Amino acid sequence: MTQQPKSTLRKKLYTIIFEAETTGGKAFDVVLLLLILLSVLVVSLESIEEINDKYLPLFRFLEWTFTILFTIEYALRIYSTPRPFKYIFSFFGIVDLLSILPSYLSLLIFGSQYLSVVRVLRLIRIARIFKLTRFINEGQVLSKALRASMNKILVFLGVVLLVVVIVGSLMYLIEGEASGFTSIPKSIYWTIVTLTTVGYGDIAPVTTLGQMLASCIMIMGYGIIAVPTGIVSVELAKSDRGTDTTRVCPNCHVEGHPADANYCFNCGYKL
Amino acid sequence: MTQQPKSTLRKKLYTIIFEAETTGGKAFDVVLLLLILLSVLVVSLESIEEINDKYLPLFRFLEWTFTILFTIEYALRIYSTPRPFKYIFSFFGIVDLLSILPSYLSLLIFGSQYLSVVRVLRLIRIARIFKLTRFINEGQVLSKALRASMNKILVFLGVVLLVVVIVGSLMYLIEGEASGFTSIPKSIYWTIVTLTTVGYGDIAPVTTLGQMLASCIMIMGYGIIAVPTGIVSVELAKSDRGTDTTRVCPNCHVEGHPADANYCFNCGYKL
Amino acid sequence: MTQQPKSTLRKKLYTIIFEAETTGGKAFDVVLLLLILLSVLVVSLESIEEINDKYLPLFRFLEWTFTILFTIEYALRIYSTPRPFKYIFSFFGIVDLLSILPSYLSLLIFGSQYLSVVRVLRLIRIARIFKLTRFINEGQVLSKALRASMNKILVFLGVVLLVVVIVGSLMYLIEGEASGFTSIPKSIYWTIVTLTTVGYGDIAPVTTLGQMLASCIMIMGYGIIAVPTGIVSVELAKSDRGTDTTRVCPNCHVEGHPADANYCFNCGYKL
Amino acid sequence: MTQQPKSTLRKKLYTIIFEAETTGGKAFDVVLLLLILLSVLVVSLESIEEINDKYLPLFRFLEWTFTILFTIEYALRIYSTPRPFKYIFSFFGIVDLLSILPSYLSLLIFGSQYLSVVRVLRLIRIARIFKLTRFINEGQVLSKALRASMNKILVFLGVVLLVVVIVGSLMYLIEGEASGFTSIPKSIYWTIVTLTTVGYGDIAPVTTLGQMLASCIMIMGYGIIAVPTGIVSVELAKSDRGTDTTRVCPNCHVEGHPADANYCFNCGYKL
Repeated sequence: MTQQPKSTLRKKLYTIIFEAETTGGKAFDVVLLLLILLSVLVVSLESIEEINDKYLPLFRFLEWTFTILFTIEYALRIYSTPRPFKYIFSFFGIVDLLSILPSYLSLLIFGSQYLSVVRVLRLIRIARIFKLTRFINEGQVLSKALRASMNKILVFLGVVLLVVVIVGSLMYLIEGEASGFTSIPKSIYWTIVTLTTVGYGDIAPVTTLGQMLASCIMIMGYGIIAVPTGIVSVELAKSDRGTDTTRVCPNCHVEGHPADANYCFNCGYKL
Repeated sequence: MTQQPKSTLRKKLYTIIFEAETTGGKAFDVVLLLLILLSVLVVSLESIEEINDKYLPLFRFLEWTFTILFTIEYALRIYSTPRPFKYIFSFFGIVDLLSILPSYLSLLIFGSQYLSVVRVLRLIRIARIFKLTRFINEGQVLSKALRASMNKILVFLGVVLLVVVIVGSLMYLIEGEASGFTSIPKSIYWTIVTLTTVGYGDIAPVTTLGQMLASCIMIMGYGIIAVPTGIVSVELAKSDRGTDTTRVCPNCHVEGHPADANYCFNCGYKL
Repeated sequence: MTQQPKSTLRKKLYTIIFEAETTGGKAFDVVLLLLILLSVLVVSLESIEEINDKYLPLFRFLEWTFTILFTIEYALRIYSTPRPFKYIFSFFGIVDLLSILPSYLSLLIFGSQYLSVVRVLRLIRIARIFKLTRFINEGQVLSKALRASMNKILVFLGVVLLVVVIVGSLMYLIEGEASGFTSIPKSIYWTIVTLTTVGYGDIAPVTTLGQMLASCIMIMGYGIIAVPTGIVSVELAKSDRGTDTTRVCPNCHVEGHPADANYCFNCGYKL
Repeated sequence: MTQQPKSTLRKKLYTIIFEAETTGGKAFDVVLLLLILLSVLVVSLESIEEINDKYLPLFRFLEWTFTILFTIEYALRIYSTPRPFKYIFSFFGIVDLLSILPSYLSLLIFGSQYLSVVRVLRLIRIARIFKLTRFINEGQVLSKALRASMNKILVFLGVVLLVVVIVGSLMYLIEGEASGFTSIPKSIYWTIVTLTTVGYGDIAPVTTLGQMLASCIMIMGYGIIAVPTGIVSVELAKSDRGTDTTRVCPNCHVEGHPADANYCFNCGYKL
């Protein structure tokens, strides 16, 4: 592009686009953050008919500006990274692509531009780049606890889904079409709405038997919410104690020393 | 049936149908899994009127195919197991029977074919057969914790039901028929809907006094959901610590010593 | 009443009515249990208009039979107990009185007979008499934990109520009468319905600003339900560990010995 | 004002208004408490049209009485405190000002008098003055636990908001205007209503795809409520154990030694 050796320009770009240590990198991230927030806001406002009718040309212009800017950014990311394919197929690479695709698609399929709200996912990267390490630590503790609870929660969800299918079918037989339970899938939907205590009320049982079964499902849903809560609490408590409790004194073999301990609290041996 | 010695055929069938160690056994289970899922899907779709109107003959055909296959499977299970009566009256034996009965019943009583969704319960066995031991362990931890919490939760539910009956009657007196509280059972139903924070809105208080009492019930329901959650959390935390308490005294064989114990708390033997 | 010395008859009656050790006492309690359940059922059914229209004379007859039987029982309780006034003003004495009063009141005030559902509270005594000690223990653990959490929960509820009053008033100003927010008390009621995640939908915000404030309240309500749950969990965990952890070894002063420990787990000293 | 030396009068006033040790101070606080409660009640009742129509002159009179009294109190507080500006810009100073401003504003802007419900916030001070130390302690434990959980909860809320924006947009595309999903902001509002299990039912999905996505969101909302609950439980448990960790090493003054520690974990000093 220029007389500058290519590798130097790419390196420089890489530092600005992917990192946030330099002044340029920070400025780039701040601008990007604002652009993402603005573009999501524009997409949201565009979907409100009264506002859209008034400002359609402005919205169109802004949207295409954002799209072109993000496209340039995407191209530069591919250009500057040493391993383009690794980036393209990484989580953030896919999100970056999905952020610009809907706008281009909207030329073919009307309405698809609303899919560009997927851009909000890009904010996760911004958070990472800004080195909000405190939050990242907390996020890691949370996601570790959730991963550790995953198996238990899957078993729980499996049992819940079996219950939901059976109760949904029973409600279909008991209530019938008159009350809005027009099919088994709709009944299953109603059962999920009830069990999770959401309760829209768009469909509600009217027969005495249906209301009795519904009451059982509600009380059950009210009670079993305790299960995932208990699971996550226990895992969080564990990951919270986590690192402290496996440090063992080499002298007396008592474990549970804090990470910053210098001496064994039991025998006084230097750790 | 054949010239083969009967006991050998039965044994072979038993290995295929009840176990999953051999290639045949695994193939059988995979096919069964797919059949169950498909048949539940067909029953669900059949209940959607528009779809049913179009594909009625196909659905009928599929349903009877599944029913005949499951009937053959049920017969083979009885034939191959060494103790047929134990199987027939076991949980899975009853589920297997209930999976085929509704179809036959539908010849007499219209609509009963929808009951065959009970087939989903058969998936539990499939899970067991596939030796998803990790999940089975988690399931055991969960069910152990739930069993241990059962008494506390029953006491809690008992108190909740007393409250629900009394508040339901009060709301009937306060609101009356005009607001939809047409009888005490219906009022009790409304109270359950409210206390569990489901809140359909098909019945809602309109008088000031009724709304005040409703507010109390909501805040109560919002607060007391803490009770089952707390109960299950504590039990899960206990069953999670579980492993610590299996340290056994070599002298008196009492278990449950803390990891840092030096002496048996029962006999004083040096651990 | 008879030639029998009065004190013996009273003692006998006391044994039968208040205790459950003898055959007569047990039979009395079983009959009472059934009568209470039946009478609550009758009151509930009576409130259903279609059923009431049909069986009015039967219900009237049954209700008065129950009332007269419970009145006799109440009289006998007062007669047989050594300290009548202590009984009359005890919790169960008042419940017993409230169980018969509404029927007599219904002669003067129509509809008051429905108040007799308060009879369900009498079931608590039956539970006690049947010596369901396991459940009573669990009940005590629960109520101890709840009492210990009471102060924290009151502080929590106080803050919640302050928020509810302020947000309710704001919603009244934002939404106004058109959306059903016709007065501040009604707005406060709506805020409670929303914060507790009940969400009837009889009143719902329609303006953008109202929906934004409502979203904040919902997310807040969704989050702060964690607070009472956490409080009760911690108290339950404590009362669960409870008695074990304050037993101190007189030799080495290590605490936390189980209630059934014979020897200190730290130094082996005989406890 | 009087012949009395000014500083003495100010000091006396300060003791009465800001403190509650003297008889005068206590009486002042009790009167203030009642006035605040009454004035909030009057504002609430005034907003009910039927009541307002009847008692308008009374309400106007009461409201201006309260406003004038609170204005005098505010003036006296500024006059008597040694550092008026510190008071004016403190939390309670601002609340005190906000308690009287709306009434004066209502002369210009109709309806703004309802804002005076902000007066309820003044009750926090009364609680403090009455030295309800037990509750204040509990409040501090709670707010400490909440502050400690804040980072984790913010991370959680951040992820929830990202999910809500994306799902809200998807639902807008799937359901469209016919079902009430008239714009992306409205769809996001619906997603929050659903995820928090509030479920008004003013907007509800009607297409099969929409109901499937809604089901996922509900189950997700039902499951992830476990996360803030777990976070707060763990923090409360920690702040509850609190007292154990105040054991201070007499040598290096590091605190936080377990109750059974023999040696300081920092310097190895024998405890």
